[in-house]
Amino acid sequence: MSEEVKPESVSLYSVSAAATPEQEAVCIFGTGDLGRSLGQRLLQSGYRLVYGSRRPHSCGPIPPGAQVMSHEIAARSASLVFVCVHREHYDFLETLAPHLKGKVLVDVSNNLKKNMYPEANAEFLQRLIPGAHVVKAFNTLSAWALQNGPSDANRQVYLCGNSLEAKQAVAEIATKLGFNVQDRGSLSAARELEDFPLQLFPEWRLPMRLTIGLTAFFFFYLLIRDVIFAYVNQGKDNSFRIMVSLANKVFPIVSLILLSLCYLPGVIAAFLQLYRGTKYKRFPDWLDRWMLCRKQLGLIALALASLHVLYTLIIPIRYYVRFRLAANTISQIKENKTSVFDTTMGWRTDSYYSMGILGFGLYLLLGIASLPSVSNALSWREFSFIQSKLGYLTLFFCTFHTYLYGWDKFLFISSFKWYTPPGYMLCLVVPSVVLLLKLLLLLPCVDKSLTRIRQGWERTDPEDDSKKSLLAKDCQKL
Amino acid sequence: MSEEVKPESVSLYSVSAAATPEQEAVCIFGTGDLGRSLGQRLLQSGYRLVYGSRRPHSCGPIPPGAQVMSHEIAARSASLVFVCVHREHYDFLETLAPHLKGKVLVDVSNNLKKNMYPEANAEFLQRLIPGAHVVKAFNTLSAWALQNGPSDANRQVYLCGNSLEAKQAVAEIATKLGFNVQDRGSLSAARELEDFPLQLFPEWRLPMRLTIGLTAFFFFYLLIRDVIFAYVNQGKDNSFRIMVSLANKVFPIVSLILLSLCYLPGVIAAFLQLYRGTKYKRFPDWLDRWMLCRKQLGLIALALASLHVLYTLIIPIRYYVRFRLAANTISQIKENKTSVFDTTMGWRTDSYYSMGILGFGLYLLLGIASLPSVSNALSWREFSFIQSKLGYLTLFFCTFHTYLYGWDKFLFISSFKWYTPPGYMLCLVVPSVVLLLKLLLLLPCVDKSLTRIRQGWERTDPEDDSKKSLLAKDCQKL
Amino acid sequence: MSEEVKPESVSLYSVSAAATPEQEAVCIFGTGDLGRSLGQRLLQSGYRLVYGSRRPHSCGPIPPGAQVMSHEIAARSASLVFVCVHREHYDFLETLAPHLKGKVLVDVSNNLKKNMYPEANAEFLQRLIPGAHVVKAFNTLSAWALQNGPSDANRQVYLCGNSLEAKQAVAEIATKLGFNVQDRGSLSAARELEDFPLQLFPEWRLPMRLTIGLTAFFFFYLLIRDVIFAYVNQGKDNSFRIMVSLANKVFPIVSLILLSLCYLPGVIAAFLQLYRGTKYKRFPDWLDRWMLCRKQLGLIALALASLHVLYTLIIPIRYYVRFRLAANTISQIKENKTSVFDTTMGWRTDSYYSMGILGFGLYLLLGIASLPSVSNALSWREFSFIQSKLGYLTLFFCTFHTYLYGWDKFLFISSFKWYTPPGYMLCLVVPSVVLLLKLLLLLPCVDKSLTRIRQGWERTDPEDDSKKSLLAKDCQKL
Repeated sequence: MSEEVKPESVSLYSVSAAATPEQEAVCIFGTGDLGRSLGQRLLQSGYRLVYGSRRPHSCGPIPPGAQVMSHEIAARSASLVFVCVHREHYDFLETLAPHLKGKVLVDVSNNLKKNMYPEANAEFLQRLIPGAHVVKAFNTLSAWALQNGPSDANRQVYLCGNSLEAKQAVAEIATKLGFNVQDRGSLSAARELEDFPLQLFPEWRLPMRLTIGLTAFFFFYLLIRDVIFAYVNQGKDNSFRIMVSLANKVFPIVSLILLSLCYLPGVIAAFLQLYRGTKYKRFPDWLDRWMLCRKQLGLIALALASLHVLYTLIIPIRYYVRFRLAANTISQIKENKTSVFDTTMGWRTDSYYSMGILGFGLYLLLGIASLPSVSNALSWREFSFIQSKLGYLTLFFCTFHTYLYGWDKFLFISSFKWYTPPGYMLCLVVPSVVLLLKLLLLLPCVDKSLTRIRQGWERTDPEDDSKKSLLAKDCQKL
Repeated sequence: MSEEVKPESVSLYSVSAAATPEQEAVCIFGTGDLGRSLGQRLLQSGYRLVYGSRRPHSCGPIPPGAQVMSHEIAARSASLVFVCVHREHYDFLETLAPHLKGKVLVDVSNNLKKNMYPEANAEFLQRLIPGAHVVKAFNTLSAWALQNGPSDANRQVYLCGNSLEAKQAVAEIATKLGFNVQDRGSLSAARELEDFPLQLFPEWRLPMRLTIGLTAFFFFYLLIRDVIFAYVNQGKDNSFRIMVSLANKVFPIVSLILLSLCYLPGVIAAFLQLYRGTKYKRFPDWLDRWMLCRKQLGLIALALASLHVLYTLIIPIRYYVRFRLAANTISQIKENKTSVFDTTMGWRTDSYYSMGILGFGLYLLLGIASLPSVSNALSWREFSFIQSKLGYLTLFFCTFHTYLYGWDKFLFISSFKWYTPPGYMLCLVVPSVVLLLKLLLLLPCVDKSLTRIRQGWERTDPEDDSKKSLLAKDCQKL
Repeated sequence: MSEEVKPESVSLYSVSAAATPEQEAVCIFGTGDLGRSLGQRLLQSGYRLVYGSRRPHSCGPIPPGAQVMSHEIAARSASLVFVCVHREHYDFLETLAPHLKGKVLVDVSNNLKKNMYPEANAEFLQRLIPGAHVVKAFNTLSAWALQNGPSDANRQVYLCGNSLEAKQAVAEIATKLGFNVQDRGSLSAARELEDFPLQLFPEWRLPMRLTIGLTAFFFFYLLIRDVIFAYVNQGKDNSFRIMVSLANKVFPIVSLILLSLCYLPGVIAAFLQLYRGTKYKRFPDWLDRWMLCRKQLGLIALALASLHVLYTLIIPIRYYVRFRLAANTISQIKENKTSVFDTTMGWRTDSYYSMGILGFGLYLLLGIASLPSVSNALSWREFSFIQSKLGYLTLFFCTFHTYLYGWDKFLFISSFKWYTPPGYMLCLVVPSVVLLLKLLLLLPCVDKSLTRIRQGWERTDPEDDSKKSLLAKDCQKL
């Protein structure tokens, strides 16, 4: 039948299917784009394919080699049915329930938005046809991958369902099509699988917005101080500094602030637990959300720090810098000055660079440790050693690097143009506070209380106290 | 018996096996290298081991602690048999079929070449002994790993087979030997598993050849222009420039071309789909192959770009550069010239560096996103956002970086030595074409047609049109 | 009951549990910290929760929504019991054995030290209650993750147990709580799982100690040569050089030594196999341990090499270097010398930088290939190609880089301050030896013998020889 509709494309499809009589039959309900893409791939992998359609004689082109039948007849011919139909049209499947009893129904559908329906499509399907074994699968792949096989982000087929045998049957097919299969448990995981293809870096939004906000603020702040101030006061055109000098101030400033914002919520949480005297009360929502995006904050900060490194390293090949160095040398000769090497200056600048390099090195280590495959290989004791101990060390190095950059300029009035402090002074506020608070938490007395609270101890009212200490001895607990 | 053959090595093997009476017995057919390596490890892990051999009394040294018997008797003593025999000798197993009924047969064999036999070794074995449960496993490990336990690329044991229970039994053993197990489905996956150890970067060959070809071409092209030209025309020995200056031209040139070659096939595919009016026709083979090696092209381009960055950053510490800078300063003083700072030059060079840094930063991001563990964690919407949107942005930055490098030199006759254009001009051709074509595809009218085609719409002959639009309303499709 | 104890926190917990009557019940034995954390999360995920306690009426605060009962009654109300009790108190569970028959017991316990007990906690539990299906699970998660859901290093739940159905039931719950599940086989894997949370980079200790030792040695060695020598002999204060110049000598020296120590054990092992004439004898323990930490040695060496790169690249922006360059230029002018460009010097320094860059580039490649997700995707043929072939190439580049650095200074007496050779000469010893030995192994005759040994051939006494060669033809082996 399909040959009549698109006879010119017959030769494109393998007809080897016809040659192997023992091949399995699978059925696809729906002849839309997804049904056609999936069908094409199934035919290529050697399956016999039957489409189920409401109007089998007028349902548009289907891949040659497949047959189109009514839903009832199609369902009868295979033990596994792919449902490539929009959820809005699932209702008609209810009438097919008797024909689908004991069959494996593969729900490949996605929605256009999250939370469009009270229950997941696959759960809805299972409710409509309780006698069938519904398996949610393939919905996280692109139509391109369904048609052409696995590619980079389309290698995993996630599936879930209540019947082990049904999942095994679907896993067989997915493996034959070339995909890796990951079982995500019972059908209650279907909602998660249906939400997956819709997401576009949800956990990166807040950190990205913060980054853009901070970057914009410091860009204009420094534009005023470095370019506009020079133009207004001295009539000098410094605008070329925007491309490198300004960028190389904005990036490290925002990076340091973001890095310290990674560690601030942990410190706040610790003080909250100390204040409340228990770890069993939930943190306020804003703190929870903040803590959940620490990894993203850290990675953005690392990206900006890397840019800072690159911008710093190209300094000596810049035209402006070479011009200035040559001009300095020439003026020294003309004025016949002999400059003397200043050992303090040597110590200070070298320490400044050294702190920066060590901080950046540790920073890279933190970044590598948060690669999924690396962090999965770590025990949480190892992971928290890296992200907490080494993390604070990184923050300390980077903060110290910035203090060394400032050196004695903190005291000079001349650095406060138009009464504004330089950018690096502003960016030192948050990290200094975080490091101070962390130092407080490391005091033996505070640390001891916190450790007890985190091991499950709770501060209670004085009258309850006696009762508690009694109980502690009685109950065997972890 | 084995003690007689190699008595000096007895003390090397743990004899704890003898102490635990309830230990499981496993059987190995074949006393060759693989059989011995595997046997040694099984004994160490506490299994009781029986070798099956055609000549049990004269079959060379076996690990102490194991027994050697005839195949029949050995098979009887264990429910699981490792077949460590070359495929050519499988025939003799047919005679053992009655003794192997219901047993788990583990096929660990590999072939010397791909496609040596019409069917996979494990499938052949299953056909010979239909009553056994054949499991393909352990063949992807090196003999070293089999003997000594898991190491880096030898941590995963892939297995496939038609019996769930048999796979479970083999997975048990693999876990006890310290490996991670990944089930790859039914026995039909055996061919894939048998091909795996033979591969040596198959998907990297085409991109590597292209890279080597391009690198060689540009190396000799620039050698002629930069070294030989100077030698012939000015008698100057510039040969030392080969090591850094020339390398730092060849690497970025090849890198930019490779990067644009990543995006060219996608653009060609889009135009082909527009021309054909359908997405259901297969692309020509060369385009398919090209699209499949985009990732490799991109990663090689990234490696070359990284070398370019390093080569650029060491510029100021080169002896040649320091010599030239000092010479410039000295000549300025001697000729008593005062050079004036050129703001345009400042803008241009700083923009040039800035574009390069941002392009390289994005490039690194693309590279990180193509690490398996990262790309597996992304939904394909996220993956295509990074690789497509950010990818084109990267290409744009890098191309713009190169244009800024050229600046007004495009117009100067003097840069065309021996009538050849400079290398960077040559390398701008492909990326400029790709960016132009992509711009065309982004035009609203073109974009709309393409989107419709990719959602499954097909352009048809005018007479069919009315029929189609009717159908579109009738069928429920995805 | 619990509402009476902590009424103020009721509103914090979702009471949706009460709304869904069909929810499953799970039981937790023990109301300590772990029991409370886990219980809170189970309640949030919609489970009905019953605590089993020895003194149900006086057992401290429990999450609101849960019930506390005696162990017997609690066990009866659920088919799955989490045992959140310390191992020391497991004995009392024996008395409950009749009530726990056929139930799934989840052992979440950890010990404070490795090897505290002769058998794993979970195996002990199984022995106490043979009628129950013990599953070891959740013990690798932090209490924080148990209470709040998966986070970076707390995403995987490893489980093991002898009953497939019991593991399936626990996997269901873990999936519902948001974790990924990895089955590690039978209960005999429990010890490994119990040791996992205790480990803090065990395989990094030896390499780290070695690194610290070497770093300290070379730091003081170079401190004496570069700073103290100048102070004593010339009265010059060079101390500022510690921060950058000295660091930039110590890091590359230690890095090169560590890199060559990665390849030394492989070479020693090869010579040992050649000497012994067999591959079936175990290596001495120290060699085994050394070979097992090669990856860690290599990664530390890479980290130090990266620091070396950064320290080198900041050279031109250092105050000291700029001062020296300007001073040089000025003195050239004042003394009216004209320095001539030295092509040999150009070749030498550029080759030196080029070798360093290429070596570092390859080095990075080795590092990327040892990321878990990358090395898992490689066949061992590919992995050994990278780590062995490319590894030796890296070692060669880096060694050659160091020789080029030295150039003709090897001959000058002046570089031997206080009769000590410069640091880079010391560090060249090991890599040169490794490369020489490797060259020996690559000689055709040696290579052939080694290959035969590694394919299972064994050198035997002359009198056995005839017998062996006969056997070789008879037995079918891999």
